[in-house]
Amino acid sequence: MKRHRVLVTTALVGGSGLKSLSRFAEVYRSDDLSRSSILDILPKVDAAIFFSWPPFLTKENLSRMKRLRFVQSILVGVNHVPFGHLSDEVIVSSNAGAYSLEVGEHAWGLLLAGAKKIAEHHSRIREGERSMKAFTGAADDIILLRGRTLGIIGYGGIGKMVAKFGRAFGMKVIAWGRRHDRLATSFRGQRGLHRLLKESDAVLLSLPLTHATMGMIGKKELSVMKKTSVLVNVARGGLVEEEALYHHLVTNPSFRYASDVWWFKQGRETLETDFPIARLPNFVGTPHMSGPTGIASGRPVKLAVKNVIRYLKGLRPENVVDRSEYPSARGDDLQKWNP
Amino acid sequence: MKRHRVLVTTALVGGSGLKSLSRFAEVYRSDDLSRSSILDILPKVDAAIFFSWPPFLTKENLSRMKRLRFVQSILVGVNHVPFGHLSDEVIVSSNAGAYSLEVGEHAWGLLLAGAKKIAEHHSRIREGERSMKAFTGAADDIILLRGRTLGIIGYGGIGKMVAKFGRAFGMKVIAWGRRHDRLATSFRGQRGLHRLLKESDAVLLSLPLTHATMGMIGKKELSVMKKTSVLVNVARGGLVEEEALYHHLVTNPSFRYASDVWWFKQGRETLETDFPIARLPNFVGTPHMSGPTGIASGRPVKLAVKNVIRYLKGLRPENVVDRSEYPSARGDDLQKWNP
Repeated sequence: MKRHRVLVTTALVGGSGLKSLSRFAEVYRSDDLSRSSILDILPKVDAAIFFSWPPFLTKENLSRMKRLRFVQSILVGVNHVPFGHLSDEVIVSSNAGAYSLEVGEHAWGLLLAGAKKIAEHHSRIREGERSMKAFTGAADDIILLRGRTLGIIGYGGIGKMVAKFGRAFGMKVIAWGRRHDRLATSFRGQRGLHRLLKESDAVLLSLPLTHATMGMIGKKELSVMKKTSVLVNVARGGLVEEEALYHHLVTNPSFRYASDVWWFKQGRETLETDFPIARLPNFVGTPHMSGPTGIASGRPVKLAVKNVIRYLKGLRPENVVDRSEYPSARGDDLQKWNP
Repeated sequence: MKRHRVLVTTALVGGSGLKSLSRFAEVYRSDDLSRSSILDILPKVDAAIFFSWPPFLTKENLSRMKRLRFVQSILVGVNHVPFGHLSDEVIVSSNAGAYSLEVGEHAWGLLLAGAKKIAEHHSRIREGERSMKAFTGAADDIILLRGRTLGIIGYGGIGKMVAKFGRAFGMKVIAWGRRHDRLATSFRGQRGLHRLLKESDAVLLSLPLTHATMGMIGKKELSVMKKTSVLVNVARGGLVEEEALYHHLVTNPSFRYASDVWWFKQGRETLETDFPIARLPNFVGTPHMSGPTGIASGRPVKLAVKNVIRYLKGLRPENVVDRSEYPSARGDDLQKWNP
């Protein structure tokens, strides 16, 4: 049997990961190789593991990788993968579920920071407000979660974890997505989405950025939400239309957006926005922390390596992405694509 | 049977509360009375209901209230009550438990805002940081709650509610206080307190400010806590020594203090501090929101009125305070008192 060759394009895969992979394949670390040796090796590689998409895997270099059949992401989201430049024979696996714990806990923190106005009031105090009287009436829009409705859009690993937190807080949980379970009422389709948005006191976005989900929360969707709702995003900025969101926050001061994720500009996620959203009191933002927190635990790398080994052993890898859901051009084009 | 007279000193007791009380007593609202009529009525009053302690109930005026036997607080904390000027015959009831839901949820929001560094990172972005790279390593001190230990100091209504959230997040819960249940390991005494502080990854303060608890978290207690711990305070600022806390936060940047409550200065809670604590990145503060949020629900007033009616009916009121735990001088003296 011919031995597989695996290309590791990130230093996140350390000693024990490399050792595990070596039992099933020749392992090459792009960091160890000169530019010319990489070019020599590319045509022989069967499988690759990556974190952010490696800049050297351009359209041209990908076209040399005639033997490539499998790429494994260490991130959950694969919206930055240049699907259009990968041959149809390449299986792409995401790392769905690997960060559910970290992202789920972070999501609940964002939800409470918005619902309880913790970020807003903390900022006012931090920026110098010292009068208790200045905060009179500030409790008006504070959401007591008990008895309220939590809407979860994307009921995968993260969605299910957050649903559990919602139920522990005495909330009714409703969900929208392909998967569902008996613990959450399930809504489907565009009408189901609007119904969920209408009924929820807090809404979580925890689904991948694809053709179908890009900009799914636009002006119309925001307008059906409750005026005092909290929209939490731990998936991808591009799920929400930036301009529509900005205007909605300005005209609805009791509505809150709490997000760990940002929009892609020029192919990468950035804290730069087209509208001064980060200055709004009803915005809470963290710099995509939930991912690094997960990475620090070592679990995402371990799970990604395990999935590559499944492939090397001839087993069906987990979390195989449906490539038809992603644009066939470069990944950053997904940001421009809008249904 | 002689009819009781109840003095209502806050507009928070509205139509339905006044109506309920009227069935069992003559009801006087201090807001409706001139200064001289108040002085006429004081000697006839049996019971009073208050929110913050009414300024007109001075030492001198209290000494005229020969018939006063019961005062009911709408707040949970009674540390601002001038116990020393109340005759020994006066029963003081707090409103413990009335805000457990609101305070419990707020406490969990503060805990996550600290544990996940949501407030810190949100502030940095709000204040202009736009480089994702600037946040490299920022995940290092982020606490994944699952599998960690939550220490609860003061295991009453709020403590039990937060313990439930802790368990839903997969935390081990330990508690310190007079009460306990089979769901949390219980620690007692000074040694028990230190053990709890040492073992916990997050600590909640949810106990009354009394002689015994004033400044209970000082330099020594902070020093036994984990360097990456989160201390959450939803009870009273005075439980923690301000100066010791400030220096601890400065010298331990991974330690976090998240608080809804502030120190009393000149007899009232204020956002003014002796040290610039609100500017520290590892401080999260809200302006005592959990109380107003509870008040907005109407439940605390309803429960306080119900307890006054218990007294008027000749039943033992609930939440009777052990007066020996409070200083016998004016309430604000409690802030100066330090064991």
